[in-house]
Amino acid sequence: MSIHAHVFKGLEGVYVIDSAICLIDTENGALYYAGYDVRELVEKSSFEEVAFLLLHQRLPTKSEFKEFTGRLRASLDLESRHIETIRRHAGNLDTLTILAELMVLEGSGKKGGEPGDLEAAINAIAKVGSFFSAIIRIRSGEDYVPPRKDLSFAENILYMMKGGVYRKEHAEILDDLLILHAEHGIPASTFASIVTASTLSDLYSSIAAGMLALKGPLHGGASEASYAQALRIGSAEKVPQWVESTLAEKKKIMGFGHRVYKIYDPRATVVKQLIARHAAAMDSEAKRLYEVTKALEDYGQKVLAPRGIYPNVDLWTPILYRMIGIPPDSFTAVFAVSRTAGWAAHILEYWRDNKLIRPLHLYVGEHPRKYLPLELREVS
Amino acid sequence: MSIHAHVFKGLEGVYVIDSAICLIDTENGALYYAGYDVRELVEKSSFEEVAFLLLHQRLPTKSEFKEFTGRLRASLDLESRHIETIRRHAGNLDTLTILAELMVLEGSGKKGGEPGDLEAAINAIAKVGSFFSAIIRIRSGEDYVPPRKDLSFAENILYMMKGGVYRKEHAEILDDLLILHAEHGIPASTFASIVTASTLSDLYSSIAAGMLALKGPLHGGASEASYAQALRIGSAEKVPQWVESTLAEKKKIMGFGHRVYKIYDPRATVVKQLIARHAAAMDSEAKRLYEVTKALEDYGQKVLAPRGIYPNVDLWTPILYRMIGIPPDSFTAVFAVSRTAGWAAHILEYWRDNKLIRPLHLYVGEHPRKYLPLELREVS
Repeated sequence: MSIHAHVFKGLEGVYVIDSAICLIDTENGALYYAGYDVRELVEKSSFEEVAFLLLHQRLPTKSEFKEFTGRLRASLDLESRHIETIRRHAGNLDTLTILAELMVLEGSGKKGGEPGDLEAAINAIAKVGSFFSAIIRIRSGEDYVPPRKDLSFAENILYMMKGGVYRKEHAEILDDLLILHAEHGIPASTFASIVTASTLSDLYSSIAAGMLALKGPLHGGASEASYAQALRIGSAEKVPQWVESTLAEKKKIMGFGHRVYKIYDPRATVVKQLIARHAAAMDSEAKRLYEVTKALEDYGQKVLAPRGIYPNVDLWTPILYRMIGIPPDSFTAVFAVSRTAGWAAHILEYWRDNKLIRPLHLYVGEHPRKYLPLELREVS
Repeated sequence: MSIHAHVFKGLEGVYVIDSAICLIDTENGALYYAGYDVRELVEKSSFEEVAFLLLHQRLPTKSEFKEFTGRLRASLDLESRHIETIRRHAGNLDTLTILAELMVLEGSGKKGGEPGDLEAAINAIAKVGSFFSAIIRIRSGEDYVPPRKDLSFAENILYMMKGGVYRKEHAEILDDLLILHAEHGIPASTFASIVTASTLSDLYSSIAAGMLALKGPLHGGASEASYAQALRIGSAEKVPQWVESTLAEKKKIMGFGHRVYKIYDPRATVVKQLIARHAAAMDSEAKRLYEVTKALEDYGQKVLAPRGIYPNVDLWTPILYRMIGIPPDSFTAVFAVSRTAGWAAHILEYWRDNKLIRPLHLYVGEHPRKYLPLELREVS
């Protein structure tokens, strides 16, 4: 019994995998997917290409890209069993729960461990997009609208969600957001996926585990919480007083601080640029949200930056989500749609050199103890 | 970028939590729950009492025990939405998938982070037992049978599964197996639960993540695989040749070897004692299974013990599962029923001093790379 073992609680600073998928430059505030700067990918690439990049750790050739997008689009259409499940639960369960449920069902009877199982990866990425759109659509009392083969992934998500009418500009914003959130190393959700996959559980079940971790307010729930916070604050002039009283009560300010970034979250910069570019498309709600968020960033940084706490991406994303018509209770679910590409990439990469994950715990309780029958036990 | 970081692949030998729930004495081959030897608990205790022990890290007083078992039994009954879900999937999905699905649905809208949320823990432990029984029952084309308030947890599982007729002796065997499998430190399933819970995702979702990890053949699937192996071998006299040819092909022999035990798995000893005690209740299938397993243990140990590989609990459990009428494709699901107590205990304990789990990865890919438009990319 090594009772003097060091316990790596939270695994902070502990390296658990080699990976060629993503590099987070925490010192300079930059994020790279397989060596490509995410800022450049948002500018020049598409979600489909980024999904290929994450899965293969290289960009596709022209013919590979054509084949990949073809397979992705072919997997978008839902079967009646999917639609029935969505119809049953859209009215009373949250979107992320239904996404996780559908992934669990998709994995029934399947085995894992095949690093070359691109078919499952592509199917998972496509399906989660269609699941998401169909849940929002069916929840609003409308019929399922099948995908269109001539549309991109982001276009299809809006097309299926809104039943045909969507704006090109919104699809561009969504495509950029999907790229930006597709991958970010191994936060708890990705780690839950890898831990699950390491038992050779299947790809769908492993992704479902990631979704269940994403559900937690300390992780994926942050953008929904940040949105609710902005609504609560209500207007820009109330920000200083709100920040001061929140800090005085030692409560957390949503949209600030990140475990890995020691400076400004580079993804927040990208989101701010996207907002600036599409400013003309803002409705009055988005404008008000923008004013509050801007004031919160300015005042919050003044107080928190000296403590090493900077704005993160979740401070700004709610504005874009609202602009393109995502219901606020489904922000986290969009994140799951995007991140499914990253989860799938990590699972397949881990299987290339699989090792069952089994850490140790340090026993700190009483030992040994002698069993006394119930009758002889003292009242505690 | 610390490119010389040590990567703890599989987290072998890395301590990740302090815990007062379980001590595995890997050198002497012994297992303790909160200080109590599991052999003594199997002899003297009940699954209900062990569930209390794991959740509170102490044995209950008489009144506490009464209250606990009362709450557990009250949570056993299923609602129509549960039964409908089971009815829909029992015929075409595997038992563990349906269990995980039901837990995911149970967690919808719930938040986590409350170490004192015993209500959720008790409800999860009770429900997974009823879910299991109802799945087996409904799959065989019969109606749901509600639990009986005068029966123990193990008795109710058999009662509900078999529709009323069950043998006292079988319930005793099941109770002993539930105790024996309730907890075992932090294998991948428990770790997936803790990682998920660390985001403050809810208790049910966190347990579902554990189930999805348990699904993997490297973890929970071992007893089903061990059973299939015994059937394949067929008879005791074929064992030596089968072992030799399997080793020559460098294939794994199921039921041998364990990541944490350096000697004979103490749980296998307990299972063998239970088999000996209930030998008179063996039917011809159980007897044949016993002969094959005995020969496999004897011959396998002769060849493998010098390499430090010993029989584990999964070598022997299939005999008991079959004796009490568990369908072979649901062995892993019984394990999940039992282990839900351990998962719940770890989740609540972790929340007492929660820290979001976020390890690091070592980037080993190319960097940096310059984005080339699709048209300019060379054919790979």
